[in-house]
Amino acid sequence: MNAWKEYQESNKERFLNEMLDLLRIPSVSAKSEHKNDMITCAEAVKARLLEAGADKVDIYPTDGHPIVYGEKIIDPTKPTVLVYGHYDVQPAEPLDLWNSPPFEPTIVDGKVFARGSCDDKGQMYMHIKVLETLVKTNTLENNIKFCIEGEEEIGSPNLGKFVSTHKELLKADCVLISDSAMISLDTPSIDIGVRGLSYIEVEVTGPNRDLHSGVYGGAVANPITILAKMIASLHDENNHITIPGFYDDVVVATAEERALMAKAPFDENEFKTDLGIKEIWGEKGYTTNERTGIRPTLELNGIWGGYTGEGAKTVLPSKAFAKISARLVPNQSSDKITDILINHLQKIAPANVTVKASLHHGGEPYMTPIDSKAYQAASKAMETTFGVAPIPVRGGGSIPICALFEQELGIKIVFMGFGLDSDNLHSPNEKFNIANFYKGIETIPYFHKYFTELS
Amino acid sequence: MNAWKEYQESNKERFLNEMLDLLRIPSVSAKSEHKNDMITCAEAVKARLLEAGADKVDIYPTDGHPIVYGEKIIDPTKPTVLVYGHYDVQPAEPLDLWNSPPFEPTIVDGKVFARGSCDDKGQMYMHIKVLETLVKTNTLENNIKFCIEGEEEIGSPNLGKFVSTHKELLKADCVLISDSAMISLDTPSIDIGVRGLSYIEVEVTGPNRDLHSGVYGGAVANPITILAKMIASLHDENNHITIPGFYDDVVVATAEERALMAKAPFDENEFKTDLGIKEIWGEKGYTTNERTGIRPTLELNGIWGGYTGEGAKTVLPSKAFAKISARLVPNQSSDKITDILINHLQKIAPANVTVKASLHHGGEPYMTPIDSKAYQAASKAMETTFGVAPIPVRGGGSIPICALFEQELGIKIVFMGFGLDSDNLHSPNEKFNIANFYKGIETIPYFHKYFTELS
Repeated sequence: MNAWKEYQESNKERFLNEMLDLLRIPSVSAKSEHKNDMITCAEAVKARLLEAGADKVDIYPTDGHPIVYGEKIIDPTKPTVLVYGHYDVQPAEPLDLWNSPPFEPTIVDGKVFARGSCDDKGQMYMHIKVLETLVKTNTLENNIKFCIEGEEEIGSPNLGKFVSTHKELLKADCVLISDSAMISLDTPSIDIGVRGLSYIEVEVTGPNRDLHSGVYGGAVANPITILAKMIASLHDENNHITIPGFYDDVVVATAEERALMAKAPFDENEFKTDLGIKEIWGEKGYTTNERTGIRPTLELNGIWGGYTGEGAKTVLPSKAFAKISARLVPNQSSDKITDILINHLQKIAPANVTVKASLHHGGEPYMTPIDSKAYQAASKAMETTFGVAPIPVRGGGSIPICALFEQELGIKIVFMGFGLDSDNLHSPNEKFNIANFYKGIETIPYFHKYFTELS
Repeated sequence: MNAWKEYQESNKERFLNEMLDLLRIPSVSAKSEHKNDMITCAEAVKARLLEAGADKVDIYPTDGHPIVYGEKIIDPTKPTVLVYGHYDVQPAEPLDLWNSPPFEPTIVDGKVFARGSCDDKGQMYMHIKVLETLVKTNTLENNIKFCIEGEEEIGSPNLGKFVSTHKELLKADCVLISDSAMISLDTPSIDIGVRGLSYIEVEVTGPNRDLHSGVYGGAVANPITILAKMIASLHDENNHITIPGFYDDVVVATAEERALMAKAPFDENEFKTDLGIKEIWGEKGYTTNERTGIRPTLELNGIWGGYTGEGAKTVLPSKAFAKISARLVPNQSSDKITDILINHLQKIAPANVTVKASLHHGGEPYMTPIDSKAYQAASKAMETTFGVAPIPVRGGGSIPICALFEQELGIKIVFMGFGLDSDNLHSPNEKFNIANFYKGIETIPYFHKYFTELS
């Protein structure tokens, strides 16, 4: 199989530069101002797929941002792998914390710094270069389909409709996704689960206008203070979520799984040093890996209200807002938790304010069975190129479309993530190690080989 | 004395238009981008004072925005009234809530809508037109000095130095200030006290960078949640402030004063309807007027952290911020309360975050004795033009320079406020009733007359 390695070695600079070009397009799905950048990015993905050897690529418009579908069918009777990825990225704010412009990829110490470098353009692009590798070396032995969407970072509001109305087009034997992380190049790992999500926004209204905090201060309920009291009540002194019913459907991890998780290397001092924190934090009775893996959480993603500008303004504001999201584990339901969250916030709001709460987006948790062909092929592929078998771990993030694919297409999803937790996903200075980019391109062809053999 | 009324009637349109011109200058002291507007405004005040008949006007530079000093000395042996006012205004944000541009004065139903119309350009300008009235009708019988600063809305950081180094220049027998409100044209009132202020900003830092709320959520202390818990702990279930020592120096109002305050008209339903609130709120055991008058308060003026833009971003932020201010009553000390606030916030911060807290500005509370010549003259003046004696009330706002003037110049301050609590001070759609503007110009000449007679 050295043909793969040889081809990749002699084209590696081009592979990298093509990926950097993709990162230069500010495809921020959350912001309407980037609508045209989204179209530009979708067309770039289509062009790269065709160059790589796909025999059919189409851009499907949606009510939101378009979906790119591509395929290379060598023989309909052979196994088919559906590669899912996304070309949209998170907003880059706060911009002043970036060491280099988020959409001007900058290479430092073998790392590509840019929004989307790891999540997910860089990882998605590995699969396009794998297709090229297999086609150009005449070693493709299965069918490969690509479904690359532009709305993952806003909750894939239009993917469900696309999948359910294109089941035949998307028909495959498994879904392969590289939109997650592994522990390290020395200790490869595979996510066997992702958490679900319920992301809401809350608006607390007190008086009908901003008031002078001297003239009215002390005699009118302050929406910031009320919102703070509401938020403070959501966790108890053990950082356990206090919302009635929140934990009802949580599947308690077995002692076996917790023991297996405990095998994953975790250096508390390294963790604290990397994040610059003095103490770790979380739900009492669980380790850090368990807190992000097998337990649901409730996080404040944003808060604002009153005067937030330079200097001082003595105002008692009319409104205060917060963005709040819960991460869910099997068998919690995103819809059910969203209702529980919204109803609870309405319920605990005192009579002197009005509370509006609404859903931004949600997604179901997902687990991949270790005994599935897809998992086995992924594990064997990584063992082949890393020289050591990967550890199965639970990922803390969410890939809401997993449950969707399984439900609509009746197939399993496998995650081959080549990013690192330290890649600053969703943060300033997001990065992707070039070594990981090449390692992914080196490894994924073996997945196709082994999955075809196992099928 | 009809000469006053005659002169004012025949010039009223010009008086109003001159005031509108002053409101067109965006003299926002809190924002560095308005530095030149501040100078333009100071020069406009100087020009108007000279036109009105002042025989000497100078603009004194400070480390911040300049101070305008003017005087009309008819006879050094006669009583001297020092008029204090300010030409700076609060920031106009949030702009989208204004029905007309904040710096394009718009007249609707006899009200001037513009930032600074009531606080304090409009009220300050009444005194300039009173000087003109007295000079042009040759009825000035006392000396008048003007000290018009440009930093009142940011806590007068440079006025103290100016006053202490210009005691001879500012020498007077009382300070007259129109920077407050009265109950209504039917029920005139005079503030006999203003609250002090301690305005701080808090920064809570968790991890050293924004994190992915899925990858890290549940395992790292969220600074927004921590800040919310800190804020929530500052008031108990009776809306009593929980900070140890906060109430130590509060002078408890006498039963007599509380009985007198109870005489001031207050319609709870009108109050609720005006503010659009379902219930009143405040410290248990006190009326609304007492809560804003004789009791200290702690208000959240602003809060921000994480992602506050359009859509959703699944981030666990590095930092969260809040602007918090306390209103103080005799004999609380601004410096002491500031120390208590900052130390308390540091003390209640958990070990997994870092808290920075610093002072924006402060000011001491002040009380005007009812038996002072200045108060007697003000009361008699209002009774003359309103036909009814004004009610002495406690104002909820702060005029930090009061204590300063009394301390440095050894004279009493009297407040003749012609605004209304409903004038939206510091809020969108700030207004000043034209009728109140004219009533002030009609009334203030009598203050000078009676104060001179009583002296």
